[in-house]
Amino acid sequence: MTTAGANRPAEGLLPTAGLVPQGKGHASVVRLREQWFIACLSQELRGAPLRTELMATPLVLFRDRDGKPAALLDRCPHRNVPLSLGSVADDGTLRCPYHGWRFDGAGRCRFVPSLTSQAEAKARDATALPVLEQDGFVWVYSAPTDGGAPPDKRPHTFAYLGAKDYTTVVQVVQAAGTMFSTLENALDVPHTAFLHRGLFRSESRGITITAKVERSGDRVQAEYVGEPRPPGLIGRILSPSGGIVTHFDRFILPSIAQVEYRIGSENHILVDSVMTPVTDFLTRVYAVVSFRARLPHFVIKPFVKPLALRVFQQDARILEQQTQTIHTFGGEQFASTEIDVLGRHIWRLLRAAEQGDAVGDERVEIPLVV
Amino acid sequence: MTTAGANRPAEGLLPTAGLVPQGKGHASVVRLREQWFIACLSQELRGAPLRTELMATPLVLFRDRDGKPAALLDRCPHRNVPLSLGSVADDGTLRCPYHGWRFDGAGRCRFVPSLTSQAEAKARDATALPVLEQDGFVWVYSAPTDGGAPPDKRPHTFAYLGAKDYTTVVQVVQAAGTMFSTLENALDVPHTAFLHRGLFRSESRGITITAKVERSGDRVQAEYVGEPRPPGLIGRILSPSGGIVTHFDRFILPSIAQVEYRIGSENHILVDSVMTPVTDFLTRVYAVVSFRARLPHFVIKPFVKPLALRVFQQDARILEQQTQTIHTFGGEQFASTEIDVLGRHIWRLLRAAEQGDAVGDERVEIPLVV
Amino acid sequence: MTTAGANRPAEGLLPTAGLVPQGKGHASVVRLREQWFIACLSQELRGAPLRTELMATPLVLFRDRDGKPAALLDRCPHRNVPLSLGSVADDGTLRCPYHGWRFDGAGRCRFVPSLTSQAEAKARDATALPVLEQDGFVWVYSAPTDGGAPPDKRPHTFAYLGAKDYTTVVQVVQAAGTMFSTLENALDVPHTAFLHRGLFRSESRGITITAKVERSGDRVQAEYVGEPRPPGLIGRILSPSGGIVTHFDRFILPSIAQVEYRIGSENHILVDSVMTPVTDFLTRVYAVVSFRARLPHFVIKPFVKPLALRVFQQDARILEQQTQTIHTFGGEQFASTEIDVLGRHIWRLLRAAEQGDAVGDERVEIPLVV
Repeated sequence: MTTAGANRPAEGLLPTAGLVPQGKGHASVVRLREQWFIACLSQELRGAPLRTELMATPLVLFRDRDGKPAALLDRCPHRNVPLSLGSVADDGTLRCPYHGWRFDGAGRCRFVPSLTSQAEAKARDATALPVLEQDGFVWVYSAPTDGGAPPDKRPHTFAYLGAKDYTTVVQVVQAAGTMFSTLENALDVPHTAFLHRGLFRSESRGITITAKVERSGDRVQAEYVGEPRPPGLIGRILSPSGGIVTHFDRFILPSIAQVEYRIGSENHILVDSVMTPVTDFLTRVYAVVSFRARLPHFVIKPFVKPLALRVFQQDARILEQQTQTIHTFGGEQFASTEIDVLGRHIWRLLRAAEQGDAVGDERVEIPLVV
Repeated sequence: MTTAGANRPAEGLLPTAGLVPQGKGHASVVRLREQWFIACLSQELRGAPLRTELMATPLVLFRDRDGKPAALLDRCPHRNVPLSLGSVADDGTLRCPYHGWRFDGAGRCRFVPSLTSQAEAKARDATALPVLEQDGFVWVYSAPTDGGAPPDKRPHTFAYLGAKDYTTVVQVVQAAGTMFSTLENALDVPHTAFLHRGLFRSESRGITITAKVERSGDRVQAEYVGEPRPPGLIGRILSPSGGIVTHFDRFILPSIAQVEYRIGSENHILVDSVMTPVTDFLTRVYAVVSFRARLPHFVIKPFVKPLALRVFQQDARILEQQTQTIHTFGGEQFASTEIDVLGRHIWRLLRAAEQGDAVGDERVEIPLVV
Repeated sequence: MTTAGANRPAEGLLPTAGLVPQGKGHASVVRLREQWFIACLSQELRGAPLRTELMATPLVLFRDRDGKPAALLDRCPHRNVPLSLGSVADDGTLRCPYHGWRFDGAGRCRFVPSLTSQAEAKARDATALPVLEQDGFVWVYSAPTDGGAPPDKRPHTFAYLGAKDYTTVVQVVQAAGTMFSTLENALDVPHTAFLHRGLFRSESRGITITAKVERSGDRVQAEYVGEPRPPGLIGRILSPSGGIVTHFDRFILPSIAQVEYRIGSENHILVDSVMTPVTDFLTRVYAVVSFRARLPHFVIKPFVKPLALRVFQQDARILEQQTQTIHTFGGEQFASTEIDVLGRHIWRLLRAAEQGDAVGDERVEIPLVV
């Protein structure tokens, strides 16, 4: 048996599809450097250091003496222990739990206990990332900058956060999918009739509408023209009396999926889903929902979170299954049609952003039946 | 430490034996294409789609409007979600849970919701495998065929299933071993005295018998000549009065281990263990036990399943440990003797079948002590 | 999407840091051959075979008819089943559970059931390692020897085990760290003020002491001169009345961390931490604590094990986190200072031992503040 009984590597117990030729072994993953992503909610970061992850890289967040947030790679330069297991010293430095080395918000090594010589040295510094606190979120820039200088680029802002007559609700969820798949899912119209049956749309009312797609610079937008009021529960809540529907779906670089609905003149909802690529196949979504409505907001507000969660759980389940299938088959093999309205544009923009390329403008109109 | 402290790749936490030179990194794995394997029992496949696996490839089984079973790769061509999470539509097509694409039993895309243009397109088809329902089993062919035409080759049939005076019992079990190791185990005589002590054989009665081995075409058979009645529990059940024993062990391509005993003129048992390679290191066994016996069958039948299960649990435990050991040591290193009567022939036939080669006939006689 | 949507390998779900350039992919792992390591306590090895692991290699330990321990690779040469699932036969051979092959303590195949020809053959032998039982430990040599001859080299001995006026306590623990990291941790002074705050040292008393380091042959020693009595709980237990402190830390090849304290003339403690590299990233520590003290030993002894365990749990947690961080970042990136007194010498000696090189003598004095 020793000679003959050997034709396959004993690679491990994880199965990969052996019946069919393997896929190309690729997945729609981008790693966007020099971009702002939400690391956590402001309220999550208090006195203790907080561990988080961005593109599979562990980060430690902490606040210095003035309450200013900072972000370092979560690895002590000395013996590679996570700094997030440490504590913030009285001088506002972050102290490693192993030997007590201390780092300031710029990552500089400020103190090495027991050492009689100078503690500060470049090799002992931790890597720091620019941090910005805004709108109740702690944003982290996905690359160190020269000398820690803040980048010119600013994070996304939320148009109706704190605006008169608007109520805003924030919801944080996670999906086991690539950021691309999660973005496409958030902006995809046809799946709502199936996956979220009864919540948004019924199977089909046979009405042909038009998606007017416009891509330019850092974004792509689809305007849906001719759309009737959604017949499901959300529609009834938004506009009990019916009315003209204005519906935009937008992707904005680096990671914002924006859905905007106006029904009649009084109802307006804007959902900004800001995505953080936690790892290549895990995406966190900070959903900021601002609405103005005919109904009293105290009536609507209790429904927003449960409804958003229900929808998201259905999406998250599908995205997880998609990810597992892609891994089992050794890569993605997607077939698209013209009604995958925004997917190819989102991907084009993401890839261009990853590689520093510019993307030309494009306009197209696509009919679809709802 | 940065310069000097580095001489091993930090490959992961899974241990591989570091004290001894690694094995050749191979295992007795074959991937047999264009063969019939049992995918499930007929009774397991009802109204809902059923997920199963063949050679680590997820398959979805479903029945169309006429109840005819079909098998597709369990991956929607659109966004690679498992079709088995979907449902069978009223028209007998399988519907993806994500966007509602529908596929017929041949894998053809029949409908894309919201699409105004033609849904059917080759790139949107799912891969289908030929399926055949026979003897209460759903058989799947391990390769697509041109235009989905049924292959000429037919699945294995069970000689005494439904035969007069015979009772048949079916048992399904799984072992964490390669299909080769599971087949060799099912047809190996010497291990029964140890692993199944008391059930079949005692340690040794010092009787020398002869194994007459004949290999030809798609099979190999060992006839054991001079074998006394098994002394253990199974022997006592089979033939309380003793008698001449006729014993054949056979391997039949692609995956059948057949054990046949005649004790006296009245007792006859045929066990067909039909194996399905679920993954490279996981094998499902459909054991079809047909027997005719001196004792009333209602007396024997209650013992067959528990005994078979007991034996199989002992085998499954050993096969799992064997698999783990092979992985830890980086591959198989088997030493054989002449009383590993069928192993090398099984392997020869499997490898030839995998590569489309013919295997010459062979006859040999081997003495062994029982 | 099929063409454009593909730029990253779908390697698996395990994250590796994607935000920063990966480390060099190395870790401080050595695999020391031809060395003695403790395989188990004598009392753990009784009538049944015992599975253990050395450098990720499964071993089976068993005692022959005379009670003499033996060690074989835990893999039957026949079908690669773990021999540790078998049993010791009446003749003191180890019997495989699958087909009953029997092996003596030197690994020789002595019997193959059912075989009519000669059982003994070199290809059927199991690999044996030299074994020595001493001081209540079963030691295994980390390489086979020619013809199984015992090596000249002898295992480490414990200076005060059984000595007059001394009490000895043995404690076995495990850490999820490389042997190097676990050794450095056991002999590192600065971390005790942080990680074990309150147990050994307080944060700092501002006293500058001197570490006199001497490296020669198979060891390196640091003598700490000018050290005041430890202020923490251990200090109060050791020497309630104060006194001059003599403190040595030693690393002795292949895997012994030795800490020696004398406080005053009456108190003396020697801790030998003998390490076994279970896998590259898992280290077992056999801690042999011998002490002579002013206080009655029955008063001290109950504190030794709980204190040692408390200290070790803190160390084990840090080592595990260090290991995880190293894997996440793709390798070690350690920055050291001069007060990492013994680390670089331990590494130098380990690497030289692995490669069979000699290491020159070295003497150095290092100031540090405690």
